[in-house]
Amino acid sequence: MIIVTKPEATEEQVQHIVDRILEWGLKAEVSKGALRTVIGIIGPEDAVRERPIAAIPGVESVTPVLKPYKLVAREFRGGNSSKVKIGNVTVGGGEVVVMSGPCSVESRDQITSIAHEIKKAGATILRGGAFKPRTSPYSFQGLGVEGLRLLAEAREETGLPIITEIMDTKDLEVMEQYADCLQVGARNMQNFALLKEVGRSKLPVMLKRGMSATIKDLLMSAEYILSEGNFNVLLCERGIRTFETYTRNTLDLNAVPVLQAETHLPVIVDPTHGIGLREHILPMALAAVAAGADGIMIEVHNSPELAKSDGEQALLPDEFTDLVERVRKVAQAVGRSL
Amino acid sequence: MIIVTKPEATEEQVQHIVDRILEWGLKAEVSKGALRTVIGIIGPEDAVRERPIAAIPGVESVTPVLKPYKLVAREFRGGNSSKVKIGNVTVGGGEVVVMSGPCSVESRDQITSIAHEIKKAGATILRGGAFKPRTSPYSFQGLGVEGLRLLAEAREETGLPIITEIMDTKDLEVMEQYADCLQVGARNMQNFALLKEVGRSKLPVMLKRGMSATIKDLLMSAEYILSEGNFNVLLCERGIRTFETYTRNTLDLNAVPVLQAETHLPVIVDPTHGIGLREHILPMALAAVAAGADGIMIEVHNSPELAKSDGEQALLPDEFTDLVERVRKVAQAVGRSL
Amino acid sequence: MIIVTKPEATEEQVQHIVDRILEWGLKAEVSKGALRTVIGIIGPEDAVRERPIAAIPGVESVTPVLKPYKLVAREFRGGNSSKVKIGNVTVGGGEVVVMSGPCSVESRDQITSIAHEIKKAGATILRGGAFKPRTSPYSFQGLGVEGLRLLAEAREETGLPIITEIMDTKDLEVMEQYADCLQVGARNMQNFALLKEVGRSKLPVMLKRGMSATIKDLLMSAEYILSEGNFNVLLCERGIRTFETYTRNTLDLNAVPVLQAETHLPVIVDPTHGIGLREHILPMALAAVAAGADGIMIEVHNSPELAKSDGEQALLPDEFTDLVERVRKVAQAVGRSL
Amino acid sequence: MIIVTKPEATEEQVQHIVDRILEWGLKAEVSKGALRTVIGIIGPEDAVRERPIAAIPGVESVTPVLKPYKLVAREFRGGNSSKVKIGNVTVGGGEVVVMSGPCSVESRDQITSIAHEIKKAGATILRGGAFKPRTSPYSFQGLGVEGLRLLAEAREETGLPIITEIMDTKDLEVMEQYADCLQVGARNMQNFALLKEVGRSKLPVMLKRGMSATIKDLLMSAEYILSEGNFNVLLCERGIRTFETYTRNTLDLNAVPVLQAETHLPVIVDPTHGIGLREHILPMALAAVAAGADGIMIEVHNSPELAKSDGEQALLPDEFTDLVERVRKVAQAVGRSL
Repeated sequence: MIIVTKPEATEEQVQHIVDRILEWGLKAEVSKGALRTVIGIIGPEDAVRERPIAAIPGVESVTPVLKPYKLVAREFRGGNSSKVKIGNVTVGGGEVVVMSGPCSVESRDQITSIAHEIKKAGATILRGGAFKPRTSPYSFQGLGVEGLRLLAEAREETGLPIITEIMDTKDLEVMEQYADCLQVGARNMQNFALLKEVGRSKLPVMLKRGMSATIKDLLMSAEYILSEGNFNVLLCERGIRTFETYTRNTLDLNAVPVLQAETHLPVIVDPTHGIGLREHILPMALAAVAAGADGIMIEVHNSPELAKSDGEQALLPDEFTDLVERVRKVAQAVGRSL
Repeated sequence: MIIVTKPEATEEQVQHIVDRILEWGLKAEVSKGALRTVIGIIGPEDAVRERPIAAIPGVESVTPVLKPYKLVAREFRGGNSSKVKIGNVTVGGGEVVVMSGPCSVESRDQITSIAHEIKKAGATILRGGAFKPRTSPYSFQGLGVEGLRLLAEAREETGLPIITEIMDTKDLEVMEQYADCLQVGARNMQNFALLKEVGRSKLPVMLKRGMSATIKDLLMSAEYILSEGNFNVLLCERGIRTFETYTRNTLDLNAVPVLQAETHLPVIVDPTHGIGLREHILPMALAAVAAGADGIMIEVHNSPELAKSDGEQALLPDEFTDLVERVRKVAQAVGRSL
Repeated sequence: MIIVTKPEATEEQVQHIVDRILEWGLKAEVSKGALRTVIGIIGPEDAVRERPIAAIPGVESVTPVLKPYKLVAREFRGGNSSKVKIGNVTVGGGEVVVMSGPCSVESRDQITSIAHEIKKAGATILRGGAFKPRTSPYSFQGLGVEGLRLLAEAREETGLPIITEIMDTKDLEVMEQYADCLQVGARNMQNFALLKEVGRSKLPVMLKRGMSATIKDLLMSAEYILSEGNFNVLLCERGIRTFETYTRNTLDLNAVPVLQAETHLPVIVDPTHGIGLREHILPMALAAVAAGADGIMIEVHNSPELAKSDGEQALLPDEFTDLVERVRKVAQAVGRSL
Repeated sequence: MIIVTKPEATEEQVQHIVDRILEWGLKAEVSKGALRTVIGIIGPEDAVRERPIAAIPGVESVTPVLKPYKLVAREFRGGNSSKVKIGNVTVGGGEVVVMSGPCSVESRDQITSIAHEIKKAGATILRGGAFKPRTSPYSFQGLGVEGLRLLAEAREETGLPIITEIMDTKDLEVMEQYADCLQVGARNMQNFALLKEVGRSKLPVMLKRGMSATIKDLLMSAEYILSEGNFNVLLCERGIRTFETYTRNTLDLNAVPVLQAETHLPVIVDPTHGIGLREHILPMALAAVAAGADGIMIEVHNSPELAKSDGEQALLPDEFTDLVERVRKVAQAVGRSL
């Protein structure tokens, strides 16, 4: 931690800062410059991270030297990547994983037929929402537990493990009966009660980046889950909110290499929500894999114009089949398989 | 709802769009232009809002005519404002309300002495966090139920009603035993499970705007609460996330007049989190009231440099007393009292 | 300047960094921590600011201790504010200055009659665009030199000094014949050729903040003007670009106290462009003055629906008269006059 | 153009809107709903685009039906792409073009040796700044005309055509003596005087997207150049400004497919400035080509830690050689060559 004082800071103020540091059981190294004094704190930074140093009179700025996350840090695994198992599928190795399915589970026919289609095309994990986070209270809110049951039936029929979103701490028990992987959505990325709850689960968790979450915020939210004991976490880039209105969100592919440098957790990209325009999902999926993503999530519907949610951005099964073919070529070009 | 077709849309596609509209029990008005066809939908817009019209082949854009919120809309109250009672304090009338207190409840002494100080200075509602949403799992997470008890004691001593944050649907019952007003924090603004839960409470709710929530998003989240039957809702602007890094957030005072034009719900401004720099909280508080806010929320601590959270942005009791005096003058200059 | 090394940085890399610092004629203070080494650079920071230190192998981060601006810094004036004269009007003292006029000069009648109206209402500086920065090449581009002549006639008639926008380095000479103050628009805030050119002018310059310019960027652009010898500079906050689309821009009033803490230059606020919705300009003007602005700029038109540019956000003369009255009350409430 | 009225709009106001439309020589189609009236304007939208319709009393919103750009629109070329020649290199066909070179021209040796290196690696266009837009007036501002001469010598030696930035309308003549392609930088994207000037040049122009420019803004700025007669325009995505601070900018690859759908102009991506972190330039370059970019621009320096500008993000020649090899494989995987 490095403290820089204000130009008008007095001798007494500098001494008071040093005294506080000593009180906390650390050492202070003071360098007086012509205009400002720089105070380095020597010792474990954790002991001071939570102190409101900027509130001490005379302090101009406080700069941490170490990262605030530990368990998610790449260094924690000695620079290696983690692998996470979802059912029988391994995420985080040489193979790029394709997750697919409809936005919402709507009926047995719908989810089962889509599950068959995406499996044939090459997807290995089935997604589908049973509890739906909708901006409007008047929108379709999902089939709830009935949706979970239909997902489980589709798994039975196809063998595909399933991932579905959890929205409430109260739902963990029922989720654990049906799901193979829990999804924490973008809007709940900083729902800390929920993060702690899924941190106590045995199931793997895919944590989606919030719309205005920095990469550091995302890693800190993942740290919540790991700190409760659950290390089976995937991170998912799904578009951030910027000033651009042409696209629904701005898919931030910069996050892919940055996350891979910072953390050992696998990184999934969701181009469907990320760009939100069905005609442009393909190029963004190709770009995600070229950038190094460990997997992609693509929404598919057999009748988008009748979908109960997000039909505007769902691909038809045929379009999805074509997408997987093209993604495979790019994966190979960057030394991965699919 | 107005649909504009792509320039290359065929006759069949236009007809298919019209057929869908008729299927939904509405009428379609078609105007063919040189390049594009415009289709107006006549009838209740709610019936089509949730349909994925943009997924129908040939559609270029879909523009709603009506607002997606109803119960929160100013029109719902015939253009009048709502008043919300928190304990014996009325929010939303001619008087500007001042809420104040520490970020976190830390001890009986701390909360009680601060409560006395802010009451003397002119605050009428006491804030204090018992359950704290912290970016890091290693930060102080609040005293929990014990914090609620200490808040209630401070209310006993001072007569000030209390507002405190709820983070988990599981906590509603215990919250209702102690609090006079529930706060839903910025990070939970789209935690829809929580919104529904507090919508079923008898307590008033202050809903804070999320860091990347548009004004429409905020109103839709409030709509969730009202649609469950709880009309005692305050909205709170507390800073949005922009590219600017000098300030902690960008307090968006534009939201004040815009919200007051769109909704009947009272609007509170939180300059403490909004700008996040203690030396600049005063001018932002003055500006908030000049812009028309129905109240402000200001964090105060008697020893900021020892605070367990957010000490960097807490005012000292004396600074707060001065702030209230100055805010009062601005309130009077714009025809309000305090 | 403080350098933090990567955890994997070798002894040789640390030594190489130190050697570079010594080469530049400075001293290095090395503190080895458990994970990272911190190197403080002792000596004039300017000598290293432009060096690509982050390009040296083993460097993780580089944190400057000093501000990159000098002439604009508040410290440069010993903590005092500057006053800038525009014609016979002083900006930056106890009095809040009101600049007003139409977006574009359209005709002799238009500019002269508006000038009379705004003068009567209390404005002391006349604005009007002769060269107009328009997003579309097909929009009205301004009357050019003819517009400047008409502005000068309006000054003749009313005595109001005039401010108008310069868009091209080639136009400085003609501008200097007519204008009392040059405006550099938001879109040219980092047009460094133009900044240097107006820096060589005798006329005062009002520099508008770019739509995505940080406060630091704005100050660095002002530094360009001062570094060429022109110290008569006003800064103008006019709205930044955020994710919010309800308003045209997000007027960032946080910039007012922050700029006043960082620089001695006067700060003007332009609520017209800032919020861009005529019905909400009044509260934002009140808030700007409450926040401490040294002046406001308000667009007025006598027939907004026939205006050749920005009619949507122009106030009618009567509305403007009312606004000035109300702004005066708020100015007095915060200890200023108008 | 579709006008929606406010709920409280009177009959007279609606009639007044209709009258205005008729005055402009167009037809109005009025549909009265329960709450609001919708007025469609029939006839050439250009005739009304510039009218301040929102300033007419009773108007709530105005939605254009047509795009505001014409010459740059994909439809203008009947759906085909344009090819632009820079020297003997064609941009916009099946081949992905690689532009490379240092940020700034620093010396004859530097530019010539880098030119040889990048040519050997596979680049076909040489970049290098002679006039440099620097945030600080105290930073290296480029060698000016001398830099242009050195670039021309490097072209002589290697045969690579050169692209370099123009910052001032006054410099066009000298630029035309030396350059093969003009670059308009991000900070000048809405310097309309400069856009008009380069629009009158015979040289091709690469227009970089401004840091907070929407895709529509970028296209409107390109429209300025085409409307002056110069159709040889490339667009360049180089990172936008968002809330994320880990990366220097947020490279917005969403812009690639969106631009290719909207315009016939070739699209270049600059990952160097886009992400601004040398260790992550490679994956972003791969992603750019996978997303469909017509070319990439990569900064290379033979001694980054001694570079006079942007050394932190320059690749070494060997790293660049490796990058081109990998980019070639991705190009082939998406059906392009390099």
